[in-house]
Amino acid sequence: MTSDHRIARRHFTAGSALLLTATVMGALSLASAQSPLQDARADPALIDDASRYLLSRSLAPELVTADDIVELDLDSNALNAAGRAMYAERFIHGAIYKARPDVKAVVHSHSPALIPFSVSSVPLRPVSHTAGFISDGVPVFDIRKASGITDMLVSDGDRARRLAETLGPQPAVLMRGHGVVVVGTSLPIVVGRSIYLELNAKLQTQAIALGGTVTFLDPQEARGVMAAGENGGYQRAWELWKRKAAAR
Amino acid sequence: MTSDHRIARRHFTAGSALLLTATVMGALSLASAQSPLQDARADPALIDDASRYLLSRSLAPELVTADDIVELDLDSNALNAAGRAMYAERFIHGAIYKARPDVKAVVHSHSPALIPFSVSSVPLRPVSHTAGFISDGVPVFDIRKASGITDMLVSDGDRARRLAETLGPQPAVLMRGHGVVVVGTSLPIVVGRSIYLELNAKLQTQAIALGGTVTFLDPQEARGVMAAGENGGYQRAWELWKRKAAAR
Amino acid sequence: MTSDHRIARRHFTAGSALLLTATVMGALSLASAQSPLQDARADPALIDDASRYLLSRSLAPELVTADDIVELDLDSNALNAAGRAMYAERFIHGAIYKARPDVKAVVHSHSPALIPFSVSSVPLRPVSHTAGFISDGVPVFDIRKASGITDMLVSDGDRARRLAETLGPQPAVLMRGHGVVVVGTSLPIVVGRSIYLELNAKLQTQAIALGGTVTFLDPQEARGVMAAGENGGYQRAWELWKRKAAAR
Amino acid sequence: MTSDHRIARRHFTAGSALLLTATVMGALSLASAQSPLQDARADPALIDDASRYLLSRSLAPELVTADDIVELDLDSNALNAAGRAMYAERFIHGAIYKARPDVKAVVHSHSPALIPFSVSSVPLRPVSHTAGFISDGVPVFDIRKASGITDMLVSDGDRARRLAETLGPQPAVLMRGHGVVVVGTSLPIVVGRSIYLELNAKLQTQAIALGGTVTFLDPQEARGVMAAGENGGYQRAWELWKRKAAAR
Repeated sequence: MTSDHRIARRHFTAGSALLLTATVMGALSLASAQSPLQDARADPALIDDASRYLLSRSLAPELVTADDIVELDLDSNALNAAGRAMYAERFIHGAIYKARPDVKAVVHSHSPALIPFSVSSVPLRPVSHTAGFISDGVPVFDIRKASGITDMLVSDGDRARRLAETLGPQPAVLMRGHGVVVVGTSLPIVVGRSIYLELNAKLQTQAIALGGTVTFLDPQEARGVMAAGENGGYQRAWELWKRKAAAR
Repeated sequence: MTSDHRIARRHFTAGSALLLTATVMGALSLASAQSPLQDARADPALIDDASRYLLSRSLAPELVTADDIVELDLDSNALNAAGRAMYAERFIHGAIYKARPDVKAVVHSHSPALIPFSVSSVPLRPVSHTAGFISDGVPVFDIRKASGITDMLVSDGDRARRLAETLGPQPAVLMRGHGVVVVGTSLPIVVGRSIYLELNAKLQTQAIALGGTVTFLDPQEARGVMAAGENGGYQRAWELWKRKAAAR
Repeated sequence: MTSDHRIARRHFTAGSALLLTATVMGALSLASAQSPLQDARADPALIDDASRYLLSRSLAPELVTADDIVELDLDSNALNAAGRAMYAERFIHGAIYKARPDVKAVVHSHSPALIPFSVSSVPLRPVSHTAGFISDGVPVFDIRKASGITDMLVSDGDRARRLAETLGPQPAVLMRGHGVVVVGTSLPIVVGRSIYLELNAKLQTQAIALGGTVTFLDPQEARGVMAAGENGGYQRAWELWKRKAAAR
Repeated sequence: MTSDHRIARRHFTAGSALLLTATVMGALSLASAQSPLQDARADPALIDDASRYLLSRSLAPELVTADDIVELDLDSNALNAAGRAMYAERFIHGAIYKARPDVKAVVHSHSPALIPFSVSSVPLRPVSHTAGFISDGVPVFDIRKASGITDMLVSDGDRARRLAETLGPQPAVLMRGHGVVVVGTSLPIVVGRSIYLELNAKLQTQAIALGGTVTFLDPQEARGVMAAGENGGYQRAWELWKRKAAAR
């Protein structure tokens, strides 16, 4: 099988998964992946290449189809853009895949529930067991401190490298006045984490609004949730999300 | 009629009801039942067996169909799973049916409006007459105090027994950082209570946000609501919920 | 034309209007009327009888069709129920038509945005010009003060008479821990007021949440809004609401 | 080509754009334009006439079609109304086009998230980079201070002139107890700004609710966002908004 065929196959499977992701998560979310859907994993040699990742061309996420998926290297150069415009912030994805070999999928979104925590002195903390994956908290990337006065966009390799440094070994990083980046070892996991991190932000906001004291997840409990398999890799919900996406 | 036929009949009617329940209440809710829909009550001997209950196999609730309903005993052993995976937290249901002979239906959900009250020092109290059934308040089950450091899941008989103890004779119990369990004497009642308990949480949250003092339901008023029939057993709304579910 | 024909005609036109009302306002709202849609006003003698009003039989409002409309007298006796169950709280409507000859339509709803103001010491006040009709504020009916310990329902003539007294000459009355009653001189007006009163509650709640001081509508401004025709009797929006209802 | 043909052509293209705008932004928003969709810009002489603007006749915005578009002069006299009723507040649009030659499109809406900031002592400020266009803040027009006691409507040329003065060189002006006016150099820009200004209001409201200190966009950062092209003129999102509108 030629390299071209490999790319086409990867595009097809990952394209379907990225399309599902956009449909499930809404217009402000953008996913990239190194790992296509599980049913394509039968031949890992065919699909896993740690020096490449897949991302849509510049397009409103809800409009993405398989044909819009482009292959990029870890410096976020598009390898088969064929003249199509790419996202200015694609560097976020490349820099994280470079810094975190364990990461196989990345979501960058402008989650409305999370942005307030990116600008507040009040830290995001796990309220619900479904947010057990943030037992160590979520770092905040302030681009002003990292790169001075900018247009707020992580639109070059240097800014992206500093964002990846702030992320460190964590599952997510808030971007001050901008949004969030969530990472994981598969598309279902990164989508599940994105959904439940937003939900946790809503729950914490409401709990604070009640005016009393708030009991957060104990770090040991959070580690217990992770050790138990982090909601089974979100496979049960993933089946539902796929059906909902297919029905649209 | 053989035992097999009895099970099939019970599965069909209860399966329809559980499916409706999942559709009405959304993807995070899970209902079990000992009492099928009223139209199957003509022959109580056929359907009521206090040593058994019905619950879906492990599946996103919105995807449940009649074929997914499994029969369990009160230790939450699946009797006809035929190899299908079961929910890790099925023990919640069995332990409550065992401890509360008056209970014929149980809903466990991750209601976003209720979870903040499960982690706040501010107690959930009845604001609206539709929440008259919580005149005595809603206990909070903190799994850390009952069972130490866990993965937050009520995934064995011992944790479930302690949850049932915290529930006591009440209609609902909040689970700290997790969700809620609501019980009742029929599926319409347990669904109605689940919906109106969530609504009450929203109303109380908003009333607190206004910053003044809040007048709660008088306990005697709440008992008056219950004595008057608790919204007629939710039969009027149940007809609407069924139609909405059928239209999807 | 016989009396029967008159009733049938009134039922048809008012039934359509009440159905629209339920569809526009959702499942928790219940409208009654003495004035059918304007296109039936050509012959006022045919339709206006101040000793009668029209209301659905007991049914989830979203399920109401023309055949469900029943005629009642001002003591809220159903004249043509033909054995069908009636709402326990129909007395609200009769008592208000009796006390307020200017009122031709009544909506009782459990508006989630308004109930918090019914239990808070913070009064509902006009934030937006679209709520100019509450320039004198909105009284709160506390059934405990009026009728002692009850089941919270305005389910007899005496409780309803006290509610109407609290309403006085105002366009609306909040019911503590229960909901709201809104009145007007036509169905479009009462529906418009119901929608904009709920909107105003949301706006006031959010304005308070900002933590600063809030500037309310000046009473003279509110009277200016009313003198200018209260949004043209909501006729522009009424056309949209009808189309939306018809499309369902 | 005759003047009539020119008007017809302008009506068709701008009508489509205004219809899209109403569909995307909901029933409470009203857009006017001097600049039709970009695909009609091929012949600027055909479509750009700074002494005229296009606006729907008085109609719920969601019901507007191309046939409802009317041409007005900058005193907001309708030139081809043919007896059709016009909006009482059309003067807002004319006065702004007269005062601001740079403005080619105007949206007036009753955004529920923005009205609280129009009545609060807490000013609206940019939380998110997508609100970089309000780096200088958003002025508040209090009609009571400008024009004394009114019916709150900007329904004549004098009130509208004072509103335009308060707007000054800014991209938006809040109207106390009423709504907002947003301006821009094209329909996509004014729609994008309207959507993101409302989003920023929600984010700021939630950030305040967390109770800590809030970090706003640095004015230099905001200018950086603008210099970088203000989200590319919202062209990527505009494609999505058009598709969503067409699918309804």
